[in-house]
Amino acid sequence: MTAEADVLAAADAGLEESIARWIELLRIPSISTDPAYKGDCRKAGAWLVAALKALGFEASLRDTSGHPMVVAHYRAKVRKGKLPHVLFYGHYDVQPADPLEQWQTPPFEPTRRRDKDGVERVYARGAADDKGQLLTFIEACRVWLAATGDLPLDVTVLCEGEEESGSSSLIPFLKANRKELAHDVALVCDTNMWDRNTPAITTRLRGMLHEEVTIIGPKVDLHSGLYGGAAMNPIRVLTKVLADLHDKTGRIAIPGFYEGVKELPRATREQWAKLKFSERKFLAEVGLREKAGEARRSLLEQIWSRPTAEVNGIIGGYTGPGTKTVIPSRASAKLSFRLVAGQDPERLRKALYAFVNARLPAGIKAEFHPEGGASPAIEIPEDNPYLAAAGAALKAEFRRAPVMMGCGGSIPIVTSFKDILGMQSLLVGFGLNDDAIHSPNEKYDVASFHHGIRSWVRIMGSLPDVRP
Amino acid sequence: MTAEADVLAAADAGLEESIARWIELLRIPSISTDPAYKGDCRKAGAWLVAALKALGFEASLRDTSGHPMVVAHYRAKVRKGKLPHVLFYGHYDVQPADPLEQWQTPPFEPTRRRDKDGVERVYARGAADDKGQLLTFIEACRVWLAATGDLPLDVTVLCEGEEESGSSSLIPFLKANRKELAHDVALVCDTNMWDRNTPAITTRLRGMLHEEVTIIGPKVDLHSGLYGGAAMNPIRVLTKVLADLHDKTGRIAIPGFYEGVKELPRATREQWAKLKFSERKFLAEVGLREKAGEARRSLLEQIWSRPTAEVNGIIGGYTGPGTKTVIPSRASAKLSFRLVAGQDPERLRKALYAFVNARLPAGIKAEFHPEGGASPAIEIPEDNPYLAAAGAALKAEFRRAPVMMGCGGSIPIVTSFKDILGMQSLLVGFGLNDDAIHSPNEKYDVASFHHGIRSWVRIMGSLPDVRP
Repeated sequence: MTAEADVLAAADAGLEESIARWIELLRIPSISTDPAYKGDCRKAGAWLVAALKALGFEASLRDTSGHPMVVAHYRAKVRKGKLPHVLFYGHYDVQPADPLEQWQTPPFEPTRRRDKDGVERVYARGAADDKGQLLTFIEACRVWLAATGDLPLDVTVLCEGEEESGSSSLIPFLKANRKELAHDVALVCDTNMWDRNTPAITTRLRGMLHEEVTIIGPKVDLHSGLYGGAAMNPIRVLTKVLADLHDKTGRIAIPGFYEGVKELPRATREQWAKLKFSERKFLAEVGLREKAGEARRSLLEQIWSRPTAEVNGIIGGYTGPGTKTVIPSRASAKLSFRLVAGQDPERLRKALYAFVNARLPAGIKAEFHPEGGASPAIEIPEDNPYLAAAGAALKAEFRRAPVMMGCGGSIPIVTSFKDILGMQSLLVGFGLNDDAIHSPNEKYDVASFHHGIRSWVRIMGSLPDVRP
Repeated sequence: MTAEADVLAAADAGLEESIARWIELLRIPSISTDPAYKGDCRKAGAWLVAALKALGFEASLRDTSGHPMVVAHYRAKVRKGKLPHVLFYGHYDVQPADPLEQWQTPPFEPTRRRDKDGVERVYARGAADDKGQLLTFIEACRVWLAATGDLPLDVTVLCEGEEESGSSSLIPFLKANRKELAHDVALVCDTNMWDRNTPAITTRLRGMLHEEVTIIGPKVDLHSGLYGGAAMNPIRVLTKVLADLHDKTGRIAIPGFYEGVKELPRATREQWAKLKFSERKFLAEVGLREKAGEARRSLLEQIWSRPTAEVNGIIGGYTGPGTKTVIPSRASAKLSFRLVAGQDPERLRKALYAFVNARLPAGIKAEFHPEGGASPAIEIPEDNPYLAAAGAALKAEFRRAPVMMGCGGSIPIVTSFKDILGMQSLLVGFGLNDDAIHSPNEKYDVASFHHGIRSWVRIMGSLPDVRP
């Protein structure tokens, strides 16, 4: 029997105890955004420090201007050659639980039950996001230590308590502790599987470019009777600009927008095409019928591997009840662009400015506010050796190759790890689409938790063989 | 010496006393929108009743659910054949005076002064709008009575106290007193001259059509990372619809929109073309450089005789500070259309619905809210005999033919007189563009007041000759 087989057996044997610890952590209402729970956030951080110390980590709670960070280090005792050093990231804070009346069981009284579909789940705020997910890794460390007395690689754990409230301390903390935290690869457990039976690694994260555009027309609001017909209405100019953003095929019409964007590798395209995924159902669930992106692209391509232009908000003129016959002096829109690998946010920002300015009638001005900043997309090449090792480990656990998923959104921590610590991240998580994170009745399947522990056992076991 | 010459001489001789009465009325702070001034509104109404009674009118203050109406009747004693019966309309309420700190002299302590340009003016809230204007007519009655002991025609005076706060009692009052108020023609003194030296009659009032359009996309707000690219954003649909409202030449692109719209009569076009009017200056005063309406139309045509499509307000998605990566479930716009003679509001409403619905992608819905209603345009034919008589009287007074002006806005009272009382209105006023009505330092030129009295003396003298 290999060491890994011993460890997996220990994971199975210790599952009930692992679940008991998970439930203990879930009882702490560590809602980071509400100052009333400041003490509970600290308590959850301290709980993790104690748990990691008990495993033999050198662990501490580190104060920030917000909620504290948990930092813990373990250096493997048995060292044949150079061992990889991973940084595991999770967050111990949770979303607020309201609306409370929609919870079937109280959000901070974790409830384990077998539902009518035969699946066993634990219901609580944070059950999945991220307490359940992050404990899969810590419990994997526990069973490695229980079965072998050691970990097969060096591990640093970093857990923050502000992920659900803006992570304002994170970047300063990474910058201040660069040396302590920068290692070979970051492991992030905050994403989903493809489905109940199919693991996934998230390899594509779209980047982001924010820009607020304000069109300025007359110097004061005008009466639409006295001026209507002669005075240019800035809403008219703004809607014209925004309407031009997409051409008839759904393609973004800003000159140069697609420069540098690569087509999907054939293997990925084929994998995605084979996935059981109903575009119709995905859209119908949110009340839509037709996909809105570029013609002749699959929906998964549209959300995982293609850039977007979106108006997140628009306002101008009178928006209260009833009517007001005004020609407003200004109108503005908050734009955001989801970017993919190969697109340079700052070059696109300039292209956007030119696009808007080219559409202004004489005497009408545009103001730009780059609020919200910009970040390029992240794409982990599929020949990355850590990715390959983790993929093989997941395949061994689930007897099914992991889907190399995209994630339409950005995960800021991954950008920070890359920019500040110079590390790629490996995004492996065991959440499911129906986990209801951020909603009432959040849950995590017991099978997710169990597979999660076993998967990290295997991944930890496989990484020492990687030759980057 | 004709009777009219006697009356004009009396107007000149009595000017100082007329001004004294004007100033007396201006001292009453009859702000209709502010409940704190309810008593003052009543006081202003009662002041008018007393003034009219003193002239021999049968006058009364008539209660409504809001501020009272002033109604007064005078039946000419000398009656050769059928005399015309006019309804004179004015309003005794005024706008609030804030911001008070911007007034050079207190708004309810009327100040008569000769300014540096040599022009004598009275400064007060209501100096022009509408106390100064309405008194020109009452003082004209006074001097007719003083000089001849009679009026040359039958007169009913109707003054409301809610014009600046929505006129909510007016329509019910007109309906309830149709017989008492419906006569041959309404005289309304609430408009401007073309300039200091050029009188005007307003003969074209644009109509109005209001409609709020809401585009409904996904059934809930979506995360632009998870759905962006696939989910249709209702702001995108809305901006596309709104951008299509105007074609490249500024013409409104709703099919059938211009059906029934007639070109200006040649004489009017020529009169307008000869007016001293700087389009550049008109636009520059509000910070604009280029006129926005239909190409190859003068600015006066654009605001007086052509219909418009305007977005008075637009809102959708996140409009607070910072950013939110949302695809909203709905977005809406408040539209209004200024209409001209020949356009049927309800037909255009249906054309708008069809125009919007034709631009909805599959699965996206539009909701319409006709809030604010609709009213057709009013155009007084230039061969109307009352108009011709009043025009000749004004020409005699100013030694210059009156401009047959348009008014870009609607004047609801004119619509009500037409719809409820079956009367056309003759809009003759002596205001100037720089009167600052609704603003601090409202004023009315003493010359406006004096010419106004004299003009009404002449108009009253000329109307009995009209054979409608």
